[in-house]
Amino acid sequence: MTLIVLNFKTYLESTGLQALRLAEICEDISRDYSVQMVVVPQAADIQAISKAVKIPVYAQHVDGVGYGGFTGHVTAASLKAAGATGSLINHSERRLKLAEIEASISACRQAGLKTIVCTNNVATTRAAAALQPDYVAVEPPELIGSGIPVSKASPEVIVNSVEAVKGIAPQVGVLCGAGITHGEDLRSALELGSVGVLLASGIIKAKDQRKALEVLVTGDIQ
Amino acid sequence: MTLIVLNFKTYLESTGLQALRLAEICEDISRDYSVQMVVVPQAADIQAISKAVKIPVYAQHVDGVGYGGFTGHVTAASLKAAGATGSLINHSERRLKLAEIEASISACRQAGLKTIVCTNNVATTRAAAALQPDYVAVEPPELIGSGIPVSKASPEVIVNSVEAVKGIAPQVGVLCGAGITHGEDLRSALELGSVGVLLASGIIKAKDQRKALEVLVTGDIQ
Amino acid sequence: MTLIVLNFKTYLESTGLQALRLAEICEDISRDYSVQMVVVPQAADIQAISKAVKIPVYAQHVDGVGYGGFTGHVTAASLKAAGATGSLINHSERRLKLAEIEASISACRQAGLKTIVCTNNVATTRAAAALQPDYVAVEPPELIGSGIPVSKASPEVIVNSVEAVKGIAPQVGVLCGAGITHGEDLRSALELGSVGVLLASGIIKAKDQRKALEVLVTGDIQ
Amino acid sequence: MTLIVLNFKTYLESTGLQALRLAEICEDISRDYSVQMVVVPQAADIQAISKAVKIPVYAQHVDGVGYGGFTGHVTAASLKAAGATGSLINHSERRLKLAEIEASISACRQAGLKTIVCTNNVATTRAAAALQPDYVAVEPPELIGSGIPVSKASPEVIVNSVEAVKGIAPQVGVLCGAGITHGEDLRSALELGSVGVLLASGIIKAKDQRKALEVLVTGDIQ
Repeated sequence: MTLIVLNFKTYLESTGLQALRLAEICEDISRDYSVQMVVVPQAADIQAISKAVKIPVYAQHVDGVGYGGFTGHVTAASLKAAGATGSLINHSERRLKLAEIEASISACRQAGLKTIVCTNNVATTRAAAALQPDYVAVEPPELIGSGIPVSKASPEVIVNSVEAVKGIAPQVGVLCGAGITHGEDLRSALELGSVGVLLASGIIKAKDQRKALEVLVTGDIQ
Repeated sequence: MTLIVLNFKTYLESTGLQALRLAEICEDISRDYSVQMVVVPQAADIQAISKAVKIPVYAQHVDGVGYGGFTGHVTAASLKAAGATGSLINHSERRLKLAEIEASISACRQAGLKTIVCTNNVATTRAAAALQPDYVAVEPPELIGSGIPVSKASPEVIVNSVEAVKGIAPQVGVLCGAGITHGEDLRSALELGSVGVLLASGIIKAKDQRKALEVLVTGDIQ
Repeated sequence: MTLIVLNFKTYLESTGLQALRLAEICEDISRDYSVQMVVVPQAADIQAISKAVKIPVYAQHVDGVGYGGFTGHVTAASLKAAGATGSLINHSERRLKLAEIEASISACRQAGLKTIVCTNNVATTRAAAALQPDYVAVEPPELIGSGIPVSKASPEVIVNSVEAVKGIAPQVGVLCGAGITHGEDLRSALELGSVGVLLASGIIKAKDQRKALEVLVTGDIQ
Repeated sequence: MTLIVLNFKTYLESTGLQALRLAEICEDISRDYSVQMVVVPQAADIQAISKAVKIPVYAQHVDGVGYGGFTGHVTAASLKAAGATGSLINHSERRLKLAEIEASISACRQAGLKTIVCTNNVATTRAAAALQPDYVAVEPPELIGSGIPVSKASPEVIVNSVEAVKGIAPQVGVLCGAGITHGEDLRSALELGSVGVLLASGIIKAKDQRKALEVLVTGDIQ
């Protein structure tokens, strides 16, 4: 089933009560159109959302630290307790050190959380795949929030990432990020070998979020 | 009223359901002994706790960013929506850049959240006070988690901090951190001019957390 | 004497041999026009430049660590040994944590190096002044490299910074940064109460660096 | 030829004039014992050392940024101009983000500098090898500066790292770091499949640095 991961970032339209409302829309879309949606709200919003919806709720970031003196860090244990089932790691807006990425993946694995490591090009995709997360999401930074889909601007980044991951850790799924908004973007992403997409502003800032998601999954022209 | 701020850090004994249980104990102590307790759980635990207790719930960290593309950051808006009424900033386990501290204080002010900026010595206390948070908490790093109270090991750090803050921003309250566990530590801290204490492991790792808090606030010998 | 600090950044026109040549131009200007120029090259360029010129050579960054296991850090001792006599600290392109700024200032003081702490607004200027460096350089980030002088765009930032520093640490000099290029910018900066300016691209990227500096210090129209 | 990389860190015994003296000792050892020594001084010491010795001089850290507005960063171009021929990247005392490691390697490649990426375990070694630097140096953090050689404490870390690198990027050499001091440590490191060692305190803090190096390369009992 096509995987559609919606990063809520810290937009007004996806914080607090609006985050809850958006997660419920995503649940409807997931059910009505037979796609697997994953919602990715801020840490403080996870608890309410995971109680309200049945689709997977991922965190936007997790630190590779355990129980102890780590004030202000986001632990896998606290995410798990709040109902999350996975986490983004190393998003372009929250880059981590190499050793931290490895520690975060380990911490998630131990807590039973899925992991999506974000990368910026083929070389870092290779490196991230070598750490064996569940997914790698390739997002050329210059396209994030641009509305220009990576599948159109740089299809070779996706193709070469899929190829590279196959050679290093074939069980790791590749997600296509950056600039994805419309149905054709999703279709191209899948044709290029990715198992799904990582989206954000294209949906969240849409005048009608539900409609934007429907257009994405049905491939209708908006 | 004496202010007692309990930093939950990321200990097993103060994560998830145990965080909730500990917050309820703090609420009892607050009521029974007429002290003002503040609980400081992890971001993902704030929502459940703020629904369950009436004492203030602070975050352990807040980023100085607003609505927008700030994946993995902790925004004042999300904390507020989850029920927090304040935040630690620049804890020794989560140090921030100077410009970030200023931005975090501004973000909290706008969202109506109280701020406690942590510092490591008299010079940084002076600098933090110049940014006019609600409180500055002085914690010599070498004493954190040591069980040796700063009020005994380096009383001059507290006295000089209180003095320095008076000269720069007299409305800012000084909290005494690092190594505080027993009733006499609390008493000394107040005598040295602070308005309260910032505690963590001494209470959280105690065999009986409730008893440890009672001993702290009553000044009974443990 | 008016203080003119030229940050070489990492431009092609101010790296390696070109850094050396630019430093020699600055030395000429310093002598011919009775201004105090300070050159601020990259760490690896300091040694050759400090041997070649008699004007002060500052580093662009210094870490607040001493002798020991601090691979990849820039120590005050190594800068001193290479001939530097001071350092920028916390430049907007190399922001530091509050505790690090304090440690860097201490390390420089011990090594006999002068310190210029960069700040982004009046609040952080207040905080930096509380740490008592030799100078604070105020640079609103949005004006850096813009060609729009802070003295024109936001004169109140300079005036209020000078005022704030007077109240907290009157011995600290205020430098005016961001967007300074022409003679009138320098004049305004001095009239607003600063003791000099911190410049970069306006001079370094000029077609004729010597001419650009002459225009700056003589106030001739370019 | 066996590769012996000596990280000068920021020790008193390897800063400024003492760095120069130590580099000259390394040059003697390199010639007298037919090993390939590489010295790794602080950035500000590179210029004087690279003029004085003929063995390779590497930097301790390099940023993945180019010409432009990157105040306080260490560029490959400035290192090259100062005479360096390579650089450590991501040392445990100066960890970098994954995207930064990739950018640093690219910057070095463009400038004609060799690269040694430091890693902390087999998983990060795999990831670093995927980025195709010239060398990967594996250093379990708990053994750095311990005097306990990784080749004795955790030989499987070296064996598995060598194996992992072979599978991903066979042209990348593996260096053995952490705790290496004596001749037998060097011998074990080579027997386990590494092409050399990365050393620091064991030599630098030795009462007689020359003697310590001789003992290392000859395998004599100290």
